Amino acid sequence: MLEIERRYRFEDFHAPVMRGCDFDAKPMVLLLGQYSVGKTSFIEYILKRQFPGERVGPEPTTDRFIAVMYDKEDQIIPGNALSVDIEKPFHGLNAFGNGFLTKFEGSLCNAEILERITFVDTPGILSGEKQRLGRSYDFAEVTQWFVQRSDMILLLFDAHKLDISDEFKSAIELLKGNEDKVRVILNKADGISTQQLMRVYGALMWSLGKVVKTPEVLRVYIGSFWDQPYQNDEFRKFFELEQRDLISDLLQLPRNSSVRKINELVKRARLVRTHMYIMAHLKSKMPVLIGKETAQKELIKGLLNEFKEIERIKKIPLGDFPDVAAMQQRLALNMDFSTFQPESERLTKTIEQVLQIDLPQLMKLVQPPKSEDPKSTNP
Amino acid sequence: MLEIERRYRFEDFHAPVMRGCDFDAKPMVLLLGQYSVGKTSFIEYILKRQFPGERVGPEPTTDRFIAVMYDKEDQIIPGNALSVDIEKPFHGLNAFGNGFLTKFEGSLCNAEILERITFVDTPGILSGEKQRLGRSYDFAEVTQWFVQRSDMILLLFDAHKLDISDEFKSAIELLKGNEDKVRVILNKADGISTQQLMRVYGALMWSLGKVVKTPEVLRVYIGSFWDQPYQNDEFRKFFELEQRDLISDLLQLPRNSSVRKINELVKRARLVRTHMYIMAHLKSKMPVLIGKETAQKELIKGLLNEFKEIERIKKIPLGDFPDVAAMQQRLALNMDFSTFQPESERLTKTIEQVLQIDLPQLMKLVQPPKSEDPKSTNP
Ligand SMILES: Nc1ncnc2c1ncn2[C@@H]1O[C@H](COP(=O)(O)OP(=O)(O)OP(=O)(O)O)[C@@H](O)[C@H]1O
Ligand SMILES: Nc1ncnc2c1ncn2[C@@H]1O[C@H](COP(=O)(O)OP(=O)(O)OP(=O)(O)O)[C@@H](O)[C@H]1O
Ligand SMILES: [Mg+2]
Ligand SMILES: [Mg+2]
Repeated sequence: MLEIERRYRFEDFHAPVMRGCDFDAKPMVLLLGQYSVGKTSFIEYILKRQFPGERVGPEPTTDRFIAVMYDKEDQIIPGNALSVDIEKPFHGLNAFGNGFLTKFEGSLCNAEILERITFVDTPGILSGEKQRLGRSYDFAEVTQWFVQRSDMILLLFDAHKLDISDEFKSAIELLKGNEDKVRVILNKADGISTQQLMRVYGALMWSLGKVVKTPEVLRVYIGSFWDQPYQNDEFRKFFELEQRDLISDLLQLPRNSSVRKINELVKRARLVRTHMYIMAHLKSKMPVLIGKETAQKELIKGLLNEFKEIERIKKIPLGDFPDVAAMQQRLALNMDFSTFQPESERLTKTIEQVLQIDLPQLMKLVQPPKSEDPKSTNP
Repeated sequence: MLEIERRYRFEDFHAPVMRGCDFDAKPMVLLLGQYSVGKTSFIEYILKRQFPGERVGPEPTTDRFIAVMYDKEDQIIPGNALSVDIEKPFHGLNAFGNGFLTKFEGSLCNAEILERITFVDTPGILSGEKQRLGRSYDFAEVTQWFVQRSDMILLLFDAHKLDISDEFKSAIELLKGNEDKVRVILNKADGISTQQLMRVYGALMWSLGKVVKTPEVLRVYIGSFWDQPYQNDEFRKFFELEQRDLISDLLQLPRNSSVRKINELVKRARLVRTHMYIMAHLKSKMPVLIGKETAQKELIKGLLNEFKEIERIKKIPLGDFPDVAAMQQRLALNMDFSTFQPESERLTKTIEQVLQIDLPQLMKLVQPPKSEDPKSTNP
């Protein structure tokens, strides 16, 4: 499939090539939230220990993105080193340059759950000017990068001070299209009375319902995710159930993660197939000698009709085609359609083989997973 | 003020004349919700007794609008009789004709709280065809009538089956502009586990946040509002607090209701004043003999400019003016501007007196109310 991607210049149009480590990496859990909601303490709670480089406190403390990963020896790896490590799935972060890489580090840490999951701690989202001016990199773009590559996104809120700033709203909008990966945590819920908690929780859902456009309700876990005893005991049983559920949700990730990756692979393979046909089709429509430029312009303008023609000839569902407008934009970027590659019977067979045989087999391998008892592995 | 309304044909443009009983009536609490959520049982719970004509049951039971009002003797009054009773605030319902009046009745009932509040029970909102076809009147229009005249609207949900049908969504949309009067009740909350309750409550707020466009969160009371003991005891204390709060919310109505009515009166008086100036202004701009029609058309077309002129001369805030487009529509309805009344110094003085002296005095009368201890009057 990689051969097809190269030959038809897939990368110029859609997504960068996927590397081996993108498949092998452990599922990644991203923590997002306003400052002081307890993101760092949450990771500590899940690991049942502190991790190298962590800082916990009431003011904005965590000032960088920290990937907390398993290793026998505790160690901090600076962002620049981490992004060139081909064993780790962070090479893509090079694109954000030094401004970001000095605010990124790896925290190697010997904790059992890290053998299965990697956590990414983030700096708290601030409000107003501070969020925009105080950072040496584009927080939104970096967050977007992590959002796309994470297997679960934990959105934390503090039950004591629930103000959803505009900046936080923008951050939530970055989650668009990845809502299925989001879990909301209403943290420090033991610090207020039951009636207050219900008001805060209701207000949270009310606002989230307005910002998140999906009809499906996000799953919220309510509790106090750190190692201290509860203040308001009335809800002990409920909090404990919620915390247990969240942990088994986390522990189910490894399996879901492979399924999700295969799912994405299928999506990509279908797109690659369609892309191949589009490129070959456009080439075939080009005149041999003169009038290339006009022909290209016409083809771009009537791209939707070309898509429909391909759909008819190749029997590919229209849903597999890329966005017309985006494709038109790319094609307009001074490309010479006559240099595109024609159709190749061999490669057509290859991609069909991938879609019909390889991927379904891969799926079967992962599908009936060894059954796990979440309780026995509870941290 | 009534004289001004007549002279300047206020009713043709804005709202019907207000009658004495519109001011004297007790605050009215309207119950809305899908069928079987417990609306009728709720009234029974508040009254601490059954009321004449009530029917409670798991299928759709209440098939009419029932105004539950105080009287020493229990009695049912049919809708037709009730709508002609000038002592009661239901004369406006005549407009809906017999199709509705046969589905409307008064339930006179000797219960203490009815001396202060009138409750209106309604038929449950059904889903699909049944809601549209099964009724001999326009449910939406009638509901709208009650919504506008109620002092509080209780929107009930059943924690066991929270499906917000499209019909119910439309019903919620009828509340637009009256969100401040709405209280939500999540009823039968004791019948499910705490975790389930939290999911249902979250889903409710999520959906409501999408349908109700105000940023302010609606107040929700969670509990089980009938005379049976709780099934799930874990929440006893919380439910009891919620139920107490709701009742004190209800008992605060009488005072708020007068304030609200004065508030509406002030709004109306300001609109009457502006209306008077507009009518007189339009008359003054009419030619004496010929070209009336063209002049009228020009005036309607340039109405916004005329408003601005009045604003400048009379020093009336632009916010007091009616909607330009709506006013243009009314004025186009074959009216002869030259028949409008000119300005009258006496009436100008009257309305200023109303706005500057009478209404503020009225407000003072109601403002510092005799303080009430809600607990001592708890049913
Ligand atoms: N469950 C909890 N209940 C009460 N307090 C908590 C809880 N978790 C953390 N805290 C306290 O809240 C404060 C902030 O915690 P922490 O530093 O973990 O937040 P953070 O979200 O990582 O903040 P930042 O964005 O600034 O890094 C600390 O004082 C911590 O002790
Ligand atoms: N708090 C409660 N907990 C459990 N069940 C309840 C509660 N309140 C009422 N019920 C039961 O729910 C059913 C419906 O009650 P009710 O008739 O009061 O609902 P309704 O909203 O008035 O329905 P309709 O719209 O059909 O008139 C009845 O069987 C009643 O006993
Ligand atoms: Mg932190
Ligand atoms: Mg009923």
